[in-house]
Amino acid sequence: MTEHTLTAFDSELAELRSLIEGMGTAVLLQVWAASAALQQSDAGLVEQVIQKDHTVESLFREIDEKVIRMVAKRQPMARDLREIMVAIKILSDLERIGDLAENTAMRYVALAEVNSRLVDVLIPIGEMAERGLRQVLQVFHVNDTKAALAVWECDVTHDEFYNSSFCLLLTYMLENPRNIAACTHLAFVAKNMECIGDHATNIAENIFYLVEGKAPAGPRPKRDTTAL
Amino acid sequence: MTEHTLTAFDSELAELRSLIEGMGTAVLLQVWAASAALQQSDAGLVEQVIQKDHTVESLFREIDEKVIRMVAKRQPMARDLREIMVAIKILSDLERIGDLAENTAMRYVALAEVNSRLVDVLIPIGEMAERGLRQVLQVFHVNDTKAALAVWECDVTHDEFYNSSFCLLLTYMLENPRNIAACTHLAFVAKNMECIGDHATNIAENIFYLVEGKAPAGPRPKRDTTAL
Repeated sequence: MTEHTLTAFDSELAELRSLIEGMGTAVLLQVWAASAALQQSDAGLVEQVIQKDHTVESLFREIDEKVIRMVAKRQPMARDLREIMVAIKILSDLERIGDLAENTAMRYVALAEVNSRLVDVLIPIGEMAERGLRQVLQVFHVNDTKAALAVWECDVTHDEFYNSSFCLLLTYMLENPRNIAACTHLAFVAKNMECIGDHATNIAENIFYLVEGKAPAGPRPKRDTTAL
Repeated sequence: MTEHTLTAFDSELAELRSLIEGMGTAVLLQVWAASAALQQSDAGLVEQVIQKDHTVESLFREIDEKVIRMVAKRQPMARDLREIMVAIKILSDLERIGDLAENTAMRYVALAEVNSRLVDVLIPIGEMAERGLRQVLQVFHVNDTKAALAVWECDVTHDEFYNSSFCLLLTYMLENPRNIAACTHLAFVAKNMECIGDHATNIAENIFYLVEGKAPAGPRPKRDTTAL
């Protein structure tokens, strides 16, 4: 491979990374707007989440095609190939986070008339999801293994936030049958937020793999006990 | 590329496909066992789902590494490259289905003492998820575009199954507060099954793309109205 080819590939990689960061920012905005839409009962924010989804979907397709073109044209090896494989995985995590944000926002109608005390159950877990995603996007920007590990280890925290939201929602349902429908939707939103956190840890795991060439040691710490 | 290289690549591709089919079969068994575990309140089946997850995870890693080696060694182009990119995506859908089956099975404990009338709500949607996955694995085996489209169009059906399970579970919760905790778990299981169906349609979409070189025309038909 000539020096020229290397440089061309490097600049394509940089462009790929910047496209992914753009998609990450769009998705982060979706997550924020979805939570805020429910908290503030704001239909305009719901519309924003849905509109943003078109941006995210078209970015997804653009990056996907770019990756295929890069592999076909550049025949990357070793670290370059790893970078591309990791890009594909991060892409799919980001797309899924966008879907979860959209599913969250769509529940706005079912939650519009609901006592704000119920919706407030989501504040901590919503903030957690947003924070996890924001952190991992920063980690992606600087490619820092130590910071990636810190996000990766947060899985336990996500589960704890989810467990406590779930228990609180169950209590509200038992307290008053009128809360049942709303709390069921809120339980799904809590699960969506936990999943967003998990996707952020997936991304962290992939960044770690990219830099170190291996997965973090040991199984990912898990503590979701609501199923038990 | 020499005739020899082509043949070697073809045989590697065939091996890759057969590994994916093996992973598909393992995951299908997980989905079946997870549903059956809840229906029959069978702890042995739960154990099977969890054990199978180790197989699925190690198959996942094996295939993942194989794909990276193949790209690095063979520098595939056009259809071959598409085949590999599609393999990566199908792999991630199958892994996710395995996780959903495991999450379903884990709810066994919370549902062990529950009236079977409640658990029966899941029969149609569980059968639907299993059928969708089985069909798409057959489609993958024969690479048939028409059959892929048929699975892809089932997304509407999944949503309808989910909507009706969800409404029925809400009714049972309103009918008797003692049903609330169990029905919330069952609502998550119903959502898991719908998601499994959606992953099956993702796989169908990717098979279509593999054969035709483009995505199916138009947006995927959707009718999940429980959020509204």
